[in-house]
Amino acid sequence: MAKALTRREENYSKWYNDLIIRSGLAEYSAVRGCMVIKPYGFSIWEKMQSALDKMFKDTGHTNAYFPLFIPKSFFSREASHVEGFAKECAVVTHYRLKNDPSGKGIVVDESAKLEEELIVRPTSETIIWDTYRNWIQSYRDLPILVNQWANVVRWEMRTRFFLRTTEFLWQEGHTAHATEQEALDEAIKMLDVYGDFAYNWMAMPVVKGTKSPNERFAGACETYSIEALMQDGKALQAGTSHFLGQNFAKAFDVKFATKTGALEYVWATSWGVSTRLMGALIMMHADDNGLIIPPKLAPIQVVIVPIYKKEEQLSLINEKAFEIKKALEAQGISVKYDNDDSQKPGWKFAEYEMKGIPVRIAIGPRDLDNNTVEVSRRDTLEKTIYQQTNIDIKIQNLLDQIQGNLVQKAANFTDDNSRTANSWQEFQTIINEKGGFVYAHWDGTAETEQAIKEATKATIRCIPLKNKYHDTGNCIYSGKPSQQRVIFARAY
Amino acid sequence: MAKALTRREENYSKWYNDLIIRSGLAEYSAVRGCMVIKPYGFSIWEKMQSALDKMFKDTGHTNAYFPLFIPKSFFSREASHVEGFAKECAVVTHYRLKNDPSGKGIVVDESAKLEEELIVRPTSETIIWDTYRNWIQSYRDLPILVNQWANVVRWEMRTRFFLRTTEFLWQEGHTAHATEQEALDEAIKMLDVYGDFAYNWMAMPVVKGTKSPNERFAGACETYSIEALMQDGKALQAGTSHFLGQNFAKAFDVKFATKTGALEYVWATSWGVSTRLMGALIMMHADDNGLIIPPKLAPIQVVIVPIYKKEEQLSLINEKAFEIKKALEAQGISVKYDNDDSQKPGWKFAEYEMKGIPVRIAIGPRDLDNNTVEVSRRDTLEKTIYQQTNIDIKIQNLLDQIQGNLVQKAANFTDDNSRTANSWQEFQTIINEKGGFVYAHWDGTAETEQAIKEATKATIRCIPLKNKYHDTGNCIYSGKPSQQRVIFARAY
Repeated sequence: MAKALTRREENYSKWYNDLIIRSGLAEYSAVRGCMVIKPYGFSIWEKMQSALDKMFKDTGHTNAYFPLFIPKSFFSREASHVEGFAKECAVVTHYRLKNDPSGKGIVVDESAKLEEELIVRPTSETIIWDTYRNWIQSYRDLPILVNQWANVVRWEMRTRFFLRTTEFLWQEGHTAHATEQEALDEAIKMLDVYGDFAYNWMAMPVVKGTKSPNERFAGACETYSIEALMQDGKALQAGTSHFLGQNFAKAFDVKFATKTGALEYVWATSWGVSTRLMGALIMMHADDNGLIIPPKLAPIQVVIVPIYKKEEQLSLINEKAFEIKKALEAQGISVKYDNDDSQKPGWKFAEYEMKGIPVRIAIGPRDLDNNTVEVSRRDTLEKTIYQQTNIDIKIQNLLDQIQGNLVQKAANFTDDNSRTANSWQEFQTIINEKGGFVYAHWDGTAETEQAIKEATKATIRCIPLKNKYHDTGNCIYSGKPSQQRVIFARAY
Repeated sequence: MAKALTRREENYSKWYNDLIIRSGLAEYSAVRGCMVIKPYGFSIWEKMQSALDKMFKDTGHTNAYFPLFIPKSFFSREASHVEGFAKECAVVTHYRLKNDPSGKGIVVDESAKLEEELIVRPTSETIIWDTYRNWIQSYRDLPILVNQWANVVRWEMRTRFFLRTTEFLWQEGHTAHATEQEALDEAIKMLDVYGDFAYNWMAMPVVKGTKSPNERFAGACETYSIEALMQDGKALQAGTSHFLGQNFAKAFDVKFATKTGALEYVWATSWGVSTRLMGALIMMHADDNGLIIPPKLAPIQVVIVPIYKKEEQLSLINEKAFEIKKALEAQGISVKYDNDDSQKPGWKFAEYEMKGIPVRIAIGPRDLDNNTVEVSRRDTLEKTIYQQTNIDIKIQNLLDQIQGNLVQKAANFTDDNSRTANSWQEFQTIINEKGGFVYAHWDGTAETEQAIKEATKATIRCIPLKNKYHDTGNCIYSGKPSQQRVIFARAY
């Protein structure tokens, strides 16, 4: 039997890394900070992509594809964008290699230097708005509702599986609108799409809110985010949606003729979620036995394992197992039957628990006699004997139950770890001893935000759009008046 | 009315470019040789991706994701691979920009120079086989059947929409096997998948064959390809599948323990198709009125256009049109109803012909009276009056007919333009005056191949796996004996 996983209580960070390796989600590559997303990990990401893509299309968006490279000068066009984005990035300076004259491998051909360096996109606002200039002449060309699935590169100094890697996969929506209100509505609409996806597919309740000016996307007038609480009491920003005002339209000179013939700058949004969601999914639900994948995102929802001693028992079990598999698949349930005879059932049980398969069905000779199966659910580890009659309906119901239980459990956890703090002393105690979301009054200044961060490592996660607390009060740090509580937490 | 398209006869190359711009498939970007795939173009690519992805999964493959960057030294490991691939490519040398001290924009931070340069992947054999070394210990770990959908970069000097761009989108399958035979079977299996996809989805008949040693993929023992004939008589390599032998396993030291405990190098294949298929699709079917998209790949299969003079007519037509749309959609047909009142029907007819929508339905007041619609098919431009009864079944049948007609027409074209040449004189005449596939005897040497290329610009497209000619003979160029005819053509 393989060594048990590091326990969460013992070392949360090591547990997270071990789990990713052991469950076959990903591994680090030969390239600093870049990971390989292994087949099992990628199959979960595909499920996420597919659900999100449908939600984007159902809200009127279409996909397109823009270049990987962005001319360096583009980043200087939007003043705050360059500060936030164009610094830590991969720079392409040459377009050719040649044989090393000394015969040792290959070297950069210095004669093939680019006139202007190209940046591997860290995000695509600049190249996309440079393109939109050609697409938009009149109000009839608006809105443009485009999304792109792509890889992006940000040269991170400290990397962590899924949460922060040099290259990552994401989608970035980039929309163009005739009015400010329409762009604001779009930004909120996509924030809601992200919130719905997190809740309904990932079983992950989130708080929706606006970021403090300090934490805004570089180039945005307003940044909205969904924030989720992980099992260790740290917050994770799981998706963002930005109202960009006319900033990029002005930087790239994108104007449109209104119905009355006036020329106006176009209004913009952008919004994105990334493979970071994989990290959120893991940290939200997994336990000391391994992953727990919500049924709606599980590439394999049910695994069937035969329990037998003699070869002739297996052939009888095979027959029944394939029958059950077929019945489940007819309901749209994805099933793996693992009758590999080179591994023992105990090993398989541990393996599929590690991989987080929502439901395991074990069938032994006694089950054949009794017309039963043993059903084990991953979320609670409970085992129950089921009669085989209507097994498809029963398992479908169980999967729904598991999905519901996971989101309920996560919601309870988030509620239990959302606290108010009404004094600086209380705030520090909660942050240091309990973690979680702390709802506290803030005076609205960047100075106070920074001072609190330096003292406690807690940052303002968001100013909730629907605040569960409606009081006014005084800033926990400065004592100045405050109109509403904001959420503080230590964060990933 | 917009200017008519350049005619194919007049300037084939300009027709191709104009068509891509006018139909909204793609446009060039601010980055040299990189294009923007616009929403309509991308929606066709998504259809291709989705069909191919299903075919890959049905043949046992799973998707994964490997890094965009490859350490420079990796390319030197496989001797012939470096010659073919690591030369014209994008080289990342730095990982940071900084503000220009003179205050003019941003410059590369010379202190942030990478110790080893990173190459933006032109193909991923090296980084993947470096990863497979960790995945493979024993025969139990084999086969590995992995595919990746990704962007790749090859620094092309002369670029052309879809056919040859600096960055392009593709899939690359990379498989690992315990035996030579299994790897060879896999390479052929995927060649067949490509051939089936081309024929059944793209309505594009292809010839499957092996490449001459000269035209092999850098690092392959054998390269198979599918070759299609475009309307201008030039060939297009539409997909390749490579048997890589143990070359990459040796370069990256990937061995496995056999059942008997011996250590052996792993056998490999790789195979890919790219957005080049979009170019093939266009050049295979389009005409002087615009694109012709085969129904199975058409994002919009049917467009409905109302014909009316008065507003009250439109509201009656709307009712009927939505009813028909609903009936068609219930059959799984994708339908757009265009009742935009800012454009005339004539403009719409031309626009949807340009976009290659397979079927157009026009409904006017007289149709309402007669319970009819006017149906126009894009492939033949024929118009027919249909009774509305069972319109869903009739349109589904028509779409099937169009798909069948397109492939038949393409097959006839390929047959009509496949000729034999039995002398050097005859060969030159056909190549210069008619083009197409020329089946001719070749002595098997690289020297002859090169001489023929220099004299005629024709290359050996492939040595067909199923040759339609079974004769032996003498090389058209050198007169030396030849065992079988190979296919020559000028090619994209």
